[in-house]
Amino acid sequence: MRITGTFLDEITFDIPSNNWGPEEWDADFRAMKAMGIRRVILIRCASSFWMTYPSKVLPRYGIRHRPPLDLIDLFLSLAEKYEMEMFIGTCHGVDKNCGAGWTADDFRREIEFNKEIIAEIQALYGHRKAFTGWYLTHEVRANDPGVVNLFVEQGTFSKKVSGNKPTLISPYFAGVKAAEACGEQDLTVLTVEAHARHWDAVFSEIAGSVDIVAFQDGHVNYDELTAYLEVTRRLADKYGILCWSNVESFDRDMPWRFPPIAWEKFLWKLESAEAAGIKEGITFEFSHFMSPNSQYKSAGNLFNRYCQYFNIPARARDYRFEG
Amino acid sequence: MRITGTFLDEITFDIPSNNWGPEEWDADFRAMKAMGIRRVILIRCASSFWMTYPSKVLPRYGIRHRPPLDLIDLFLSLAEKYEMEMFIGTCHGVDKNCGAGWTADDFRREIEFNKEIIAEIQALYGHRKAFTGWYLTHEVRANDPGVVNLFVEQGTFSKKVSGNKPTLISPYFAGVKAAEACGEQDLTVLTVEAHARHWDAVFSEIAGSVDIVAFQDGHVNYDELTAYLEVTRRLADKYGILCWSNVESFDRDMPWRFPPIAWEKFLWKLESAEAAGIKEGITFEFSHFMSPNSQYKSAGNLFNRYCQYFNIPARARDYRFEG
Amino acid sequence: MRITGTFLDEITFDIPSNNWGPEEWDADFRAMKAMGIRRVILIRCASSFWMTYPSKVLPRYGIRHRPPLDLIDLFLSLAEKYEMEMFIGTCHGVDKNCGAGWTADDFRREIEFNKEIIAEIQALYGHRKAFTGWYLTHEVRANDPGVVNLFVEQGTFSKKVSGNKPTLISPYFAGVKAAEACGEQDLTVLTVEAHARHWDAVFSEIAGSVDIVAFQDGHVNYDELTAYLEVTRRLADKYGILCWSNVESFDRDMPWRFPPIAWEKFLWKLESAEAAGIKEGITFEFSHFMSPNSQYKSAGNLFNRYCQYFNIPARARDYRFEG
Repeated sequence: MRITGTFLDEITFDIPSNNWGPEEWDADFRAMKAMGIRRVILIRCASSFWMTYPSKVLPRYGIRHRPPLDLIDLFLSLAEKYEMEMFIGTCHGVDKNCGAGWTADDFRREIEFNKEIIAEIQALYGHRKAFTGWYLTHEVRANDPGVVNLFVEQGTFSKKVSGNKPTLISPYFAGVKAAEACGEQDLTVLTVEAHARHWDAVFSEIAGSVDIVAFQDGHVNYDELTAYLEVTRRLADKYGILCWSNVESFDRDMPWRFPPIAWEKFLWKLESAEAAGIKEGITFEFSHFMSPNSQYKSAGNLFNRYCQYFNIPARARDYRFEG
Repeated sequence: MRITGTFLDEITFDIPSNNWGPEEWDADFRAMKAMGIRRVILIRCASSFWMTYPSKVLPRYGIRHRPPLDLIDLFLSLAEKYEMEMFIGTCHGVDKNCGAGWTADDFRREIEFNKEIIAEIQALYGHRKAFTGWYLTHEVRANDPGVVNLFVEQGTFSKKVSGNKPTLISPYFAGVKAAEACGEQDLTVLTVEAHARHWDAVFSEIAGSVDIVAFQDGHVNYDELTAYLEVTRRLADKYGILCWSNVESFDRDMPWRFPPIAWEKFLWKLESAEAAGIKEGITFEFSHFMSPNSQYKSAGNLFNRYCQYFNIPARARDYRFEG
Repeated sequence: MRITGTFLDEITFDIPSNNWGPEEWDADFRAMKAMGIRRVILIRCASSFWMTYPSKVLPRYGIRHRPPLDLIDLFLSLAEKYEMEMFIGTCHGVDKNCGAGWTADDFRREIEFNKEIIAEIQALYGHRKAFTGWYLTHEVRANDPGVVNLFVEQGTFSKKVSGNKPTLISPYFAGVKAAEACGEQDLTVLTVEAHARHWDAVFSEIAGSVDIVAFQDGHVNYDELTAYLEVTRRLADKYGILCWSNVESFDRDMPWRFPPIAWEKFLWKLESAEAAGIKEGITFEFSHFMSPNSQYKSAGNLFNRYCQYFNIPARARDYRFEG
């Protein structure tokens, strides 16, 4: 079980920007490649006031920001240069900040403008070689009202307009760390069994619209992780959905949100996914939490620990860009 | 609209110290100069237990700390070396920690000991070439009881003892982000119109005692900023007060206080100030949030983004000091 | 009063891991040595799910984690290489997370499994040259129920099995910053006098089982510190316990937990300990908060400030390891 993909966290949302330009991003893709990453996943193309590309749809929803740089174009170009796949994320929260308490009505509005966004992205970047699939950006945890529809409608639409490009989602376990992470004090923790009931129902409906699922692995206790992952992987198999793990490279146990994770924890989670029969890992995310160029020095050290452990002949010092 | 000035955040208050000595500060002034900064503003000369210079006034108020280094002398020397102006900040909170809930009585006490402090600073540093003006350190948001008096008394006094050196203040907008920033849950948000009423009244009284105003630009939503800045600038014009913008270089939207701001946000705020008819920007502050020598690597990247955007031929790597 | 010892914060608990391997740790011991550090104190050998060495005791308590590297062996080897002493910390919180609200029953359980842990550590590492003493890891503040027994039983046992190796504890003052630090809103602040009553009682009981005490110096106001330290040192003298100070190198006054401390504060605390008649300082801890290799750049700057002030001919740039 290795990390073969990473999210790209722009629009950065609750994680401080690295403030990189094209040169720094190029250096970072080079470092990703050295570590074995072959796909990048743009986590969202826009969120509330900010956007990654010069959308003509979003201004119609009252958003006045214009990005100084087309990040989707930049990331596609770098993915092409380094022979990677790129999944492009949809738009999140055009009229409501993310977090707890989304209703089916909220999701309906998200679907509506996202159809326009998806069509626009297809028109602008559909011809690009590295554009491999779609990331449906909304993060959910259970069979809550509107969830199935959210993924069925966006998944079906994005596949239809793009010649059936695969779609990916990354939900989270409603585990013991979920309530605090979501700021939702009354969140019901789902046991492994309850989780299985919810996702059996969801997977049965979204199969065909969603091709790959990669659960975030950070909301349950370390010694429960294999059990949650294994039942998820079995259910995904049952419905023909490919199951990866989103091996989070940030640490959820620290007093501030978020530093790079301790190597011991990251290794434990990799081994847990392997024990659950999962074959590939993606991570949220390389550039802040595993990169030699991260603003956090311990990220470059995590890169080294990972490479040394798996006998990958790369060292952080050879991938640093001095800006 | 460019950044021509920066605060110096010593005594550091809610932002961790860089732990610099004279060599590191010299390197940082060199980097400031390269970016186009020509004035530095010491945010406060003392606060609660700590002081930046060997005051003989503060021990009389029970404060036993002695600084290992006279930072005012150091900063004046560096300002002289790099041909910059320096504004010296007054003392903050000798017997009460800063934050919400200051009363007119609190302000009266602040005025009293600050007159002694101002006289002492004039006696110690009044002859120094780089000593250009005074920064009246208290941060206010509205025409609250005691605010006018606070600035009139300190401004009049400091100008009188110093041969009419200009005085600067940096209030904040009582905007949607102010309540959380100040830890004051019942803070009344002032609309643009209410803000205008408050500051029409304040400016009409403090004109002549305060020469320059530079509002902190981080407490309102991004798409409201131009409106708040423009009405402020018009009112300042009306009363003959020079209006700059304090373009904050830290990010108020992140889960921890505070990382360097994302370049996209910083650029948006620069453009908002320009649209409001403002001609100069200062920032809080270069050394933590825009400096190649900051403890935050993304600060050096922000330096690079800023310089590249405005065609300033400086790169962070040429201004790093390896301590 | 100099810093002659440092904690080693692995298992890292509320401070993000540096993610170091053997090479990085070697570089860090070299830097410690240059600064004058001659003893290292492993803060705990295990805590909740994580352990620093391949224990056979802990799996019997249901803990499944296996460390990828034996850190106790590594630290002993480096202490031997750099001619340092090493104190090994006991296990903390095998079935309950640390923090407020420990009862005498909790302590009794901690004693029970720690006797097994102590015996195991003695069996595995008792022959090692650098293994100098024991650190009894539980942090207490007063003569609360079970505290005396906690230290008497563990201290007596660890001394007995190890040929009377010295034992060290590091309590904290129940000062004005303790309630927030411990998340215990109803914690009773102990005045200097009340503190003295509590610790007169504790010291009278634990003398003979505990050889050295080094109070954490960060939970009281700066201008009270000498008074708290002095009464502690006098009481320790009275009962034949050696008194050091744990001069914390992280900053408790900042909005996030924790950055390196400002040099002015660190110097104040060193001078306070000296004024209290204390002869040696240890710090929590070098590798995050004073090291040239820390993920926090201001830590290397603190190293430089300390070395310059005490005329130690070491500079951070000569002790950096580029991983």
